[in-house]
Amino acid sequence: MTLPNPCPASFRGPRLAAALWLAALATVAMPAVLATSRPAYALDAIVEKKTFTMPTYTTVSGGVLREVKVGWEAYGTLNADKSNVILITHFFSGTSHAAGKYKPEDKAPGYWDAIIGPGKPLDTDKYYIISSDTLVNLNAHDPNVVTTGPATPRPDTGKPYGMDFPVVGIRDFVNVQKALLESQGIHKLHAVMGASMGALQAYEWATGYPEMVGRVIPVIGAGDTDGWLVGWLDIWASPIRLDPNWNNGDYYGKTPPKAGLAQSLKVISLFSNYWTWADDTYNRKWAKPGEDPEKSFANRYAIEAALDSAGAARAETADANHLLYLVKANQTFAPGGDVGLARIKAPVLMISSSEDLVFPPPTIQRTADKIRSGGAKVEQVNIGGGRGHLNGVANVSEAADAITRFLAQ
Amino acid sequence: MTLPNPCPASFRGPRLAAALWLAALATVAMPAVLATSRPAYALDAIVEKKTFTMPTYTTVSGGVLREVKVGWEAYGTLNADKSNVILITHFFSGTSHAAGKYKPEDKAPGYWDAIIGPGKPLDTDKYYIISSDTLVNLNAHDPNVVTTGPATPRPDTGKPYGMDFPVVGIRDFVNVQKALLESQGIHKLHAVMGASMGALQAYEWATGYPEMVGRVIPVIGAGDTDGWLVGWLDIWASPIRLDPNWNNGDYYGKTPPKAGLAQSLKVISLFSNYWTWADDTYNRKWAKPGEDPEKSFANRYAIEAALDSAGAARAETADANHLLYLVKANQTFAPGGDVGLARIKAPVLMISSSEDLVFPPPTIQRTADKIRSGGAKVEQVNIGGGRGHLNGVANVSEAADAITRFLAQ
Repeated sequence: MTLPNPCPASFRGPRLAAALWLAALATVAMPAVLATSRPAYALDAIVEKKTFTMPTYTTVSGGVLREVKVGWEAYGTLNADKSNVILITHFFSGTSHAAGKYKPEDKAPGYWDAIIGPGKPLDTDKYYIISSDTLVNLNAHDPNVVTTGPATPRPDTGKPYGMDFPVVGIRDFVNVQKALLESQGIHKLHAVMGASMGALQAYEWATGYPEMVGRVIPVIGAGDTDGWLVGWLDIWASPIRLDPNWNNGDYYGKTPPKAGLAQSLKVISLFSNYWTWADDTYNRKWAKPGEDPEKSFANRYAIEAALDSAGAARAETADANHLLYLVKANQTFAPGGDVGLARIKAPVLMISSSEDLVFPPPTIQRTADKIRSGGAKVEQVNIGGGRGHLNGVANVSEAADAITRFLAQ
Repeated sequence: MTLPNPCPASFRGPRLAAALWLAALATVAMPAVLATSRPAYALDAIVEKKTFTMPTYTTVSGGVLREVKVGWEAYGTLNADKSNVILITHFFSGTSHAAGKYKPEDKAPGYWDAIIGPGKPLDTDKYYIISSDTLVNLNAHDPNVVTTGPATPRPDTGKPYGMDFPVVGIRDFVNVQKALLESQGIHKLHAVMGASMGALQAYEWATGYPEMVGRVIPVIGAGDTDGWLVGWLDIWASPIRLDPNWNNGDYYGKTPPKAGLAQSLKVISLFSNYWTWADDTYNRKWAKPGEDPEKSFANRYAIEAALDSAGAARAETADANHLLYLVKANQTFAPGGDVGLARIKAPVLMISSSEDLVFPPPTIQRTADKIRSGGAKVEQVNIGGGRGHLNGVANVSEAADAITRFLAQ
C-alpha cells in the first residue's frame, strides 16, 4: 500500500472566521448571538478528500468485508518522526470535514474550523491533524463522503448490502482508523479528539489501544452509553421502521424511506438542542404571516417548519439503513465493559456542557470518576452556549485555551 | 337539566395506599424506590363515572358541536352553600380518574389517590372534589372515559368527525368544565388544580374566569407553551402522520394507525421521564437473557422493549386523531396572550420539578414572574423523585404539606 501524501495543501495566512458550520449536525439556523465574537484565523487552504481502502476487514461481530473504503482529510504537516499526529473522530451525523473548504465558494468551512488552523488550539503549524469518515457514515449519498455500509454495493454481487451488512460498533470505526494511520506509518497519536460519537471513538481508542494514545479529548460524550441514551437512540431509529418504504432495509433502486428518515433527523436535531435555542430563535412565531396555527392543522409554527425543512434537507444525502447501523453502534458502546475506562493511561481533557440532554452531567461525572479510579489524570471543562448538546460543535472555542494548554503538556 | 348526585359514595376509613397509579401517564414500570414510604389514607369508596351532556357548544374557533358529552367523577360532599369545590383538571394522556377505584378489584386507584381522601391534602371530609374528562381525551376507546372528539359519531350522520372536528384549545376544555359545574349550581371554585396539561387548564381558568377561581395549583406546567414545547409536541404527533393507516384521519371502521400511535406514546413516555429513572431501572440490561444486542438487530435492550410494550398497550385504548387534537390544543396555549397571566387575581401555588424536560425551570420561573407582575401572590415548591416531568404525578405527595396549608389559607 502506498503512503498517501499526508499534506494535501499548505495552511498559511489569517482569515476572519466568517461562519460556523453546523450543517452536518443540524441545519436549523443558529441564532446570531451564538456566533463567536472574537476574530479567529481560519484555514485558507483547499482541503482534499482522499480515500483509504482496506482489501479486507473482519468486524468485531465476525463479518468479513472486502474493499472497505473510508474518506479522510488532513490539515498541517506530518513531521519526520511522525510524532505530531492528532486524530479527529466525527459525531453521529458528521463527516471527516472538520476544517477548511473543498472549494473557495463553499458556504462554510468544516465544523471545527474555529479551533483548527494556524495559531489555533489544533495548530496546523505544529500538528498533523487527520480526520476520517467512519464506517456506516450517515451521509452515504454526500459526494464528499466516502464510507462503507449497507448502501455500499457488495464487491461480489454489485448489489448494496442492505441489512445484511454485519453489525458494527465503535471499535470497528477505530480499527479502520488504526489501519488508515498505519498506512501512513503512524503508530502513536499525540492526541485523539472528537465530539459526541467522536468522543465515544476517542474513549474506544484510549481503552482499546492505550499504548498508541498520548492524550484524549472527548467532547460532549460519556465513556459508555447509559439506559437513557439507549432508549433515545431507539426513538431516533423508530420513524424509519414506521416508513413502509423502508421495507426492512431493502429499498435501494426503489423509493427510499425519505419521510421516516427526515423524521428521525428532526428528532435528533431537537434532542441535540436546548430550550434556550428554541425560545430565543422561534418561541411562538408562526411559520407564515396570516396563517394562525389556531385556525387550522395546515398552519404551523416557525419551529415546526424549520425542523421539517432541516430534516428533509438532511435526508437528501443521508441513508436510512446507515442511521440504523449508527444507532446500533452507539447503543452497544461500553468499551472494555465495567473496567474499560479504568484502563485508560493517557491524560484526558473532558469538555462537556451542563445543558447536554444526550450526555447529561451525571454520565459525564461517572465517566470522569471511572477513569480517575484507574489512575489517569482527568481535567474537566464545562462549556455553555445555549445550544445543549450542540454546544460541543457550535461553541467548542469556549474551551480553546484549555485545549491549547492540554496539547502542549 | 337535573342536578346530578354530587357524592357518588361515602369516603371513610383508612387504608394503606398500596400502589401509585401511573398507567395513564406512562405504563412503564416504576422503580420501587419511588413508591411513597409513608402510610397514607386512601379512598375506600367505589367511584362512579358519570356523564355530562351539553346540547350544544360553540368552540372558540367557531365550530358548533351538538350533544357534547364528557365524563366526570367526584369525591367528597358538596356543602350547602357550594363553597367547598376543588376542580381537578387532567394531564395530556390522563382521564378524570384522579382517586379511588371503579371496582374493588381494580389494580390501582386514580392517579392522585396519594393526595385525595379523608385527612389528605385534598381532604374529602372537607372538600367536594370534582374531576372531568376533557374534550378530545386521548383515551377515547377506554370504556371508563367519556369524551367528544374526532372519534365521536356526528349526531347528524352517525359517522365519526375525523379531522373535520373543529380545532379546540385549552379554553374549550375549560368552557365545558364551567358548564358542568354550573349544571350543579357551582359558580365559585375553592381551588383548581391540575398536572401538566391540567396545569394549563388551571391557568386558563384563572385568566379566563378570574372571578370564579379562589386558588390555583398548577403542577408541572407553565403559563404558556414555549418554542421548545411547540417543537416537541410536533415530534410527538409526527409518527401518526407517518403511519399510512392514519390516512389523513379517515381510519374509523378501517385499520387504525396503531404503530404510529404506539410510537407517539413511546416518545411521550421517554420525554416525560428522566435519566435517573432510565439508568436506575434499566441501564444497559438486555431485553432477554442470551440475546445480546451486539449480535443482531432483533436483539434489544430492556428499556427498548419496555417502551415498546408500554406504547403498544396504551395504543389499544387511545385514538390517534385525538392525540393530534391534543397536540394542537397544547401548542396553541397562551391564555390571554402576553398580558393574560398578569390578570390572575387568585393566589397561586406552583408545584414544579427542576428535573422537568417538558416544562423546564426557566418556563416555570417566567410564569411565576408574569403572575407576580400583576400583583397576585405566588408560592413555588420544587419536588424531586427522579422521574422528570412525571414527578408531578408519581411524587406529588412531596408537596402534601404545602398543598394542605395553601388550601386552608
